[in-house]
Amino acid sequence: MKNLKLASRETHERTAVTVAGIEVGRNFAVIAGPCSVESEEQVLETARAVKAAGANMFRGGAFKPRTSPYAFQGLGMRGLRILAKARQETGLPIVTEVIDPRDVCWVAEFADVLQIGTRNMQNFSLLKEVGKSNRPVLLKRGMYSTLEEWLNCAEYILSEGNPDVILCERGIRTFETYTRNTLDLSAVPAIKELTHLPIIIDPTHSTGRISLIGPMSLAAVAAGADGLIIEVHHNPSEALCDADQALTPDTFADLMSRLRTLKSFLDQQPCRGDR
Amino acid sequence: MKNLKLASRETHERTAVTVAGIEVGRNFAVIAGPCSVESEEQVLETARAVKAAGANMFRGGAFKPRTSPYAFQGLGMRGLRILAKARQETGLPIVTEVIDPRDVCWVAEFADVLQIGTRNMQNFSLLKEVGKSNRPVLLKRGMYSTLEEWLNCAEYILSEGNPDVILCERGIRTFETYTRNTLDLSAVPAIKELTHLPIIIDPTHSTGRISLIGPMSLAAVAAGADGLIIEVHHNPSEALCDADQALTPDTFADLMSRLRTLKSFLDQQPCRGDR
Amino acid sequence: MKNLKLASRETHERTAVTVAGIEVGRNFAVIAGPCSVESEEQVLETARAVKAAGANMFRGGAFKPRTSPYAFQGLGMRGLRILAKARQETGLPIVTEVIDPRDVCWVAEFADVLQIGTRNMQNFSLLKEVGKSNRPVLLKRGMYSTLEEWLNCAEYILSEGNPDVILCERGIRTFETYTRNTLDLSAVPAIKELTHLPIIIDPTHSTGRISLIGPMSLAAVAAGADGLIIEVHHNPSEALCDADQALTPDTFADLMSRLRTLKSFLDQQPCRGDR
Amino acid sequence: MKNLKLASRETHERTAVTVAGIEVGRNFAVIAGPCSVESEEQVLETARAVKAAGANMFRGGAFKPRTSPYAFQGLGMRGLRILAKARQETGLPIVTEVIDPRDVCWVAEFADVLQIGTRNMQNFSLLKEVGKSNRPVLLKRGMYSTLEEWLNCAEYILSEGNPDVILCERGIRTFETYTRNTLDLSAVPAIKELTHLPIIIDPTHSTGRISLIGPMSLAAVAAGADGLIIEVHHNPSEALCDADQALTPDTFADLMSRLRTLKSFLDQQPCRGDR
Repeated sequence: MKNLKLASRETHERTAVTVAGIEVGRNFAVIAGPCSVESEEQVLETARAVKAAGANMFRGGAFKPRTSPYAFQGLGMRGLRILAKARQETGLPIVTEVIDPRDVCWVAEFADVLQIGTRNMQNFSLLKEVGKSNRPVLLKRGMYSTLEEWLNCAEYILSEGNPDVILCERGIRTFETYTRNTLDLSAVPAIKELTHLPIIIDPTHSTGRISLIGPMSLAAVAAGADGLIIEVHHNPSEALCDADQALTPDTFADLMSRLRTLKSFLDQQPCRGDR
Repeated sequence: MKNLKLASRETHERTAVTVAGIEVGRNFAVIAGPCSVESEEQVLETARAVKAAGANMFRGGAFKPRTSPYAFQGLGMRGLRILAKARQETGLPIVTEVIDPRDVCWVAEFADVLQIGTRNMQNFSLLKEVGKSNRPVLLKRGMYSTLEEWLNCAEYILSEGNPDVILCERGIRTFETYTRNTLDLSAVPAIKELTHLPIIIDPTHSTGRISLIGPMSLAAVAAGADGLIIEVHHNPSEALCDADQALTPDTFADLMSRLRTLKSFLDQQPCRGDR
Repeated sequence: MKNLKLASRETHERTAVTVAGIEVGRNFAVIAGPCSVESEEQVLETARAVKAAGANMFRGGAFKPRTSPYAFQGLGMRGLRILAKARQETGLPIVTEVIDPRDVCWVAEFADVLQIGTRNMQNFSLLKEVGKSNRPVLLKRGMYSTLEEWLNCAEYILSEGNPDVILCERGIRTFETYTRNTLDLSAVPAIKELTHLPIIIDPTHSTGRISLIGPMSLAAVAAGADGLIIEVHHNPSEALCDADQALTPDTFADLMSRLRTLKSFLDQQPCRGDR
Repeated sequence: MKNLKLASRETHERTAVTVAGIEVGRNFAVIAGPCSVESEEQVLETARAVKAAGANMFRGGAFKPRTSPYAFQGLGMRGLRILAKARQETGLPIVTEVIDPRDVCWVAEFADVLQIGTRNMQNFSLLKEVGKSNRPVLLKRGMYSTLEEWLNCAEYILSEGNPDVILCERGIRTFETYTRNTLDLSAVPAIKELTHLPIIIDPTHSTGRISLIGPMSLAAVAAGADGLIIEVHHNPSEALCDADQALTPDTFADLMSRLRTLKSFLDQQPCRGDR
């Protein structure tokens, strides 16, 4: 693919990105947690629940890029402190979004993985800054972006010296209105033939419908994805954002058990070239 | 969903569409064969191969809706006779496209399933005509169409008295250029909550890339699809259309074995409400 | 452009399509009238009004391709008779849609121009049939179609022997929801560099908003369009379809006066190569 | 429109944004110049030419957001100094892009208008920062963004205290490949009914084709746009970016003369409510 150097499949066979001992690309990653950090109680309760269900990373937003300037923008530093407490209690590494290049350096002290959101995929100043940090980066696909543009954004990060990029497909914008976006699951095998970087799937923001999260998570596993990022809220009806697409801890635990069964079945199959 | 009556989930729990003893919606359907009927030798050789690999229906186009009037338009009646011979020899029921309402009545004498292609999804005269026939209809999603529009097209067929509609997601048109179209796999669980009709997936035309067909077929099974339609050609490099996206019989046989293993594993899992 | 022969700019400099003495491509065409024929009174009253305002063709649908089978499908033959009466009274030639290849031959006896709607752009059987008729064809762009695909559909008609094709840009499907579709006005100069056929604009169906019809009509004239097709209803609030996007006769008359002024101003400008 | 306060049409009738004496929204703005600042000679020569042709602002990028990290990224500070020289010599105010919130404060010392590019439309940190500056902001529409999202980004700037936002439609991403993007000209009247802010059109980046720039510029004037931003390069074939879409000074001068003629004709027409 044009212009790709460090991100190209030709340079490495496969990269595993290590996050607190989890080798993403070798170990299946399940990142779960609420859309935004709202309170200590909410975060700790949800973190305990997703840990118990088998998630191996915790997500939560302290900085929320919202369409309207009048919508809840996140708790900022206070939110990061709550996330740190959740890590301390559960041992789960923390994935959290950073939206301003000036924040990268201190957010990196709280976060185990720095998330670049879909609206910032081509925020090149931000990419360069996380490229200079020593934290793995979760790079979400722009909702309007081609695979080529996305991989070039990974290249921005890699070329600054940070080799640890995890790609995340989160749906692209189409004319369909039944789902929030259209999950492009074919990005999983496509990305795997273009780059050595791991790729995970976000079934929550792509579909925007609780009923579709389970089937799309199983499909992602079957397609060869390296992990999932799923919104879980201890009390979805009271969530400050995305209230209607977060799983409850119980539904999440049920999904986790099905994912584990499917994953361990697939891992026992003889290896084939095209996977 | 607005205006849906006969196609609505509210009217039935699940419909199985019976094609030559195969209950689509209960039995997993694998429809395989070449894009277009080119010769008797090509069709018979491919039909034997896909039968041996475990496909339970055979596809082949005698009428090809092509972008240019100067491209190969199919063998017409002669192609249908070749398809009939393939059925006679292999016992596989025949799925073939009809593109003109005047042809429905006699094509239905050769075909076991009448296919409506993506460009004709809203060809309402054609829909009404297949709605009056006594053959099951494979209704492909328009590459530009919402789920609501698609289901309303099924409603056109049902409202003429034909209850046997199989839906087929074959990719929607987006800005992405790496794949031919974007496979909207979330349509599988979405359709299952909106209608009682079965839905199958076309991984060939949606991705347009041989390397993506395997992973997307497995993902379709995991997402709960009722079947697949896959292009197979005994000699892809000589195919008169879509030469670069047909599987060889060998690759297809390998895929079938993986699909069977996955499908039988999933069928053993305890039933869950959201599937 | 690939595969284009008869439609290519290279074969002719410019084609004017003659409709009842109006040379579309040389004379500016304004086609006005209701979405569908509902009654004789409605049609005659609207036809008189648009004639008085300066329209030079009358439109009205007797066959309506509707999303739902339960929506009003048009008056059929009875609608065509009403349209013929309107022509008799006003002298305006009639533009009406045909949706079934079996109808082309007798609809052509009532219509001066056969319209192919956006959903039927790639209904190749229908294209071939209108290609065999001796009536000019108004070929709307598929809402999902590229310029290349559209011109190949014109080629289908031309290659059957009918040289009289008028192209009509009517909006493409995008993610924007404020407008019904997105009017691709750049198609006007693009089409003019690719083909010798005339192109008109449909500001009604592309925008779906009365307030945008005036500005987009003026813009179409400035971009070099050869005409417009505009929905006018003598009593929009009672229209059986598209009630909220039809102009009243008064608003239409006002727009016509502005269009005439702009058009005659532009026609006085010295000729320049890139127009 | 949901959430809009300061940007809403309901709060003001019309805003004129004053840039060095030009009241954008009342005076027609023509912003011309190269994609990127390459050298003093290139900038000065082009600036003199566009000034002579009648442009009233000069554009040039010192910071270039490029798909690949290995593409030319702009001259930075050195580029800004060259732009300042062009202003000094020609008197034309300078429009230049800022891509990092840390740069806003010092770029604002060189620029008369701060441009936010399409990839940064939802870079909320950057929006807040330009909202705190005392420079007018040219806010390009995201190539994937709805009118509602775009206006909410204007609201981000206004809500920080900066009332001077000029909107710029530059094409949206669709499936069409003949043009670089699809110019959504209907955004002009749509924006005018939703907000009091002025809106200009970028015919260069939307179409990506020199031959379409003239017709789309005239169409923009007819649709009621408040200005245009056009790429001009003194030697397009040697441009470091977008070489094939910049006008030569001569072509630009010819276009300006046609624009002036059309604009002064339209200004003489009696005022009508829907414009």
